Amino acid sequence: MRLALEEAWKYQGLTYPNPAVGCCVVGEFGEILALEAHKKAGAPHAEVNALQQAYYKLTADETILHLELSDEIHTYLLEHHKNIFQKTTLYTTLEPCAHVGKTPSCASLITQLGIHKVYVGSKDSNRVAKNGNTLLEQAGILVENGILQESCDALLFPFQKTLEERFVFFKWAQRLNATTDDGIISSQASRKNVHAMRNVCDLLVIGGETVRKDRPTLDARLVGGKAPDVLIFSRQKEFDTTIALFNVAGRKVFIADNFSKLENYKNIMIEGGAQMYACTTEIVDYYLVYIAPSFGGKHAFAAVKRNFEILNVAKEDKDIIMWMK
Amino acid sequence: MRLALEEAWKYQGLTYPNPAVGCCVVGEFGEILALEAHKKAGAPHAEVNALQQAYYKLTADETILHLELSDEIHTYLLEHHKNIFQKTTLYTTLEPCAHVGKTPSCASLITQLGIHKVYVGSKDSNRVAKNGNTLLEQAGILVENGILQESCDALLFPFQKTLEERFVFFKWAQRLNATTDDGIISSQASRKNVHAMRNVCDLLVIGGETVRKDRPTLDARLVGGKAPDVLIFSRQKEFDTTIALFNVAGRKVFIADNFSKLENYKNIMIEGGAQMYACTTEIVDYYLVYIAPSFGGKHAFAAVKRNFEILNVAKEDKDIIMWMK
Repeated sequence: MRLALEEAWKYQGLTYPNPAVGCCVVGEFGEILALEAHKKAGAPHAEVNALQQAYYKLTADETILHLELSDEIHTYLLEHHKNIFQKTTLYTTLEPCAHVGKTPSCASLITQLGIHKVYVGSKDSNRVAKNGNTLLEQAGILVENGILQESCDALLFPFQKTLEERFVFFKWAQRLNATTDDGIISSQASRKNVHAMRNVCDLLVIGGETVRKDRPTLDARLVGGKAPDVLIFSRQKEFDTTIALFNVAGRKVFIADNFSKLENYKNIMIEGGAQMYACTTEIVDYYLVYIAPSFGGKHAFAAVKRNFEILNVAKEDKDIIMWMK
Repeated sequence: MRLALEEAWKYQGLTYPNPAVGCCVVGEFGEILALEAHKKAGAPHAEVNALQQAYYKLTADETILHLELSDEIHTYLLEHHKNIFQKTTLYTTLEPCAHVGKTPSCASLITQLGIHKVYVGSKDSNRVAKNGNTLLEQAGILVENGILQESCDALLFPFQKTLEERFVFFKWAQRLNATTDDGIISSQASRKNVHAMRNVCDLLVIGGETVRKDRPTLDARLVGGKAPDVLIFSRQKEFDTTIALFNVAGRKVFIADNFSKLENYKNIMIEGGAQMYACTTEIVDYYLVYIAPSFGGKHAFAAVKRNFEILNVAKEDKDIIMWMK
């Protein structure tokens, strides 16, 4: 489950409007057959990706590796499994879905493959997808709930928050010595990751001073993605509208000295420095920091006292990517 | 090999005078049977730990899990393996040892178990332990060298450096906003980790100002370990000798304004802040930083320009532990 969590966190922020989910399939003697995650909306669920890999490990049948669509993988597994999953165990950070959405139900797939036991982290309270555990139990599969539940709930929280209200995360990039000035800080891989997140955000919030100084575009060009709407947080309402961000097709730009516009959005990224940080502590759910392993610059990020809890830390190319709350 | 590397880095700094080594045993279809590391001198090598776990996964024979001594595990494996390893593959960050030291030779164990294929990261240039690959090849085992060699060499470097001359690493603890002042920064788990490293260091270098201000003991009491000798780097030679570090049994304390004393030592930790960092860049091999996920304090670590390369990053309890060069 620990490994499934780590795998899932790699795609946190990228799966909206779906949850980030990780899945690990383990063989008869505890050997790891597959470790996968849900990567983006419309792509196979974590369980389907993991069962695809596990099937390959157990059969060496490469045909399944060429399938990309969830329903193709489902169908292939159901037609070819020959009961090879009967001694396997599945760990999933979230209760397997019970409804047929963009992909067939994972709970039904698991029961039909005859998996021995399923360990579940978080329960699914999503009205249309829940009750996967019940389906499994009715089919005679052993189900154990609440495994590393606190960690699985923290992984699921952004999704839950978008269902109930909205999820707001604050992103910044800094050097090891906490500076945020003096040119480009993050590696190309980190910047691509930010663009991939912008691609699935529906609103991006940024400070007026940054807009005036950096004249940013704030799109997702590094991943060929769409540009989210922008809220410029500023008391002074006049901006030079030749600044790139004002001229992105299909984008709305708001200028306001408050956050009431957030009410119309679900998945919101705030990009900023020390000043934006101070203004937004009351509305931010999670923090996402990219740390470059370097010293340089002059102006440090924050001097205010604060304790965070690390939710996940990983190395991405040259930098650290860390989620906190 | 990537997983074996991560596992090994957890014990970097703790295995002296042995190298940090990681090992992964993989089954017939690519499933992971074991992922282990060498944890301290005198304890089983990474390969032995991994083969012990893999044996258990393949047989469900719990007896082997109760064995702790390397020669006991060797003997048990040789008597009970029944050729179950014939379709397994072993990944090791370092060429398996070919000599009988505190533990029997790993290369001989691997050949006798009839492992199918061995992937090796770094070659072993240690005069007494090398030529493990040759032993494997002579026994008909497939050997592939140089897998992720650059990363494996970076893992092995501290050991190589102690053989050739001495390994010097600089350790500091900071908050996310780079401050190093204002009381305890790191979690209890991080401080225990530092004490475990002190326990295997033979010399600890610290600045005179820190000694005067913090009056530290600089021992390894959190892990019940031994206290290393201390070099206080200071132009001013007079100290209040009631300061705890001067009164640790069996310890030598040197006070000097240069680093010539380092010549008599092999595994050296420098603990310090910005000033010590600036004075030691020419003699330091690796950097080890503990980052607490918090804001606070006033004085930031370093303003000088510098680019590091991250060698490994991991979460330890509440903090980040990161090795860089």
